[in-house]
Amino acid sequence: MTSQQLSVRVAINSWKLVVERADKVFSNLSDSQLLKKVVAPGRNRLIYLLGHLTAIHDAMFSILGLGPRLHPELDAIFVSEPDNKQVQLPAASDLKRYWDEVNRKLLSQFESLSADEWLQRHRAMSEEDYAKNPARNRLAVLLNRTTHTSYHLGQALLAVE
Amino acid sequence: MTSQQLSVRVAINSWKLVVERADKVFSNLSDSQLLKKVVAPGRNRLIYLLGHLTAIHDAMFSILGLGPRLHPELDAIFVSEPDNKQVQLPAASDLKRYWDEVNRKLLSQFESLSADEWLQRHRAMSEEDYAKNPARNRLAVLLNRTTHTSYHLGQALLAVE
Repeated sequence: MTSQQLSVRVAINSWKLVVERADKVFSNLSDSQLLKKVVAPGRNRLIYLLGHLTAIHDAMFSILGLGPRLHPELDAIFVSEPDNKQVQLPAASDLKRYWDEVNRKLLSQFESLSADEWLQRHRAMSEEDYAKNPARNRLAVLLNRTTHTSYHLGQALLAVE
Repeated sequence: MTSQQLSVRVAINSWKLVVERADKVFSNLSDSQLLKKVVAPGRNRLIYLLGHLTAIHDAMFSILGLGPRLHPELDAIFVSEPDNKQVQLPAASDLKRYWDEVNRKLLSQFESLSADEWLQRHRAMSEEDYAKNPARNRLAVLLNRTTHTSYHLGQALLAVE
């Protein structure tokens, strides 16, 4: 294994660890618990965090150039708007299934990228900007999304501990 | 810049971003706000999170083999035990200073390591275990501590938003 392959392996391991911890939180809750439990009084419901993380992970297909996203319809509810009890959400059981599908497919795509492909620009960057700052690459997106998931995991655990 | 150097740069950028965001939360609060504000009712005070993150960051000097830690005395209060209002804490102003010192010195040490040194084993690993799994290296510690800080940052922001 080259140094660069090893670094990518470490980054994918970190992603997996955080996603598995989040998955444990969500999959251990019933649909009605997901709807009822909040991070703190007046704060996000866990179902909102599940939808939000699924949408952000799903968007990684586009940003990383890994093909079309599976559930772009989630953005309107879970990314563009804050949690709102007046809004009709997808069923918790459907969201759990999307979460699983998105994470499973992402991981399989991650494993198929070569070490050098991880250092190519991500799709939210122009060629010109990437030339100026080659650290704005796929690997940076992976690390950024890992810390994003961990950020909300810290909140989600407040609801279940 | 080699591929491996670029990967290390991306990882250090991710660490910096998360630590800067946490620093913004803590440095914008007065000492008495740090003592009073909690993540959620009955949960950690922000001063506990500040001490906890400072202690965990400080321990990185030892784990990464970067020399002696600056404040090992923090572990007894902020790592081994949960938040407890009966326990006498260091002054908030001192903790803020330790947080700054530790993060500044860590970052300067991070910048001085070569790309290959990041892939060497960390000090909590034996040579034998590292030989079996070379992904248990310094870079893995950096990513792990970055997600740890982000985890608590998500909680801390609940207290201040």
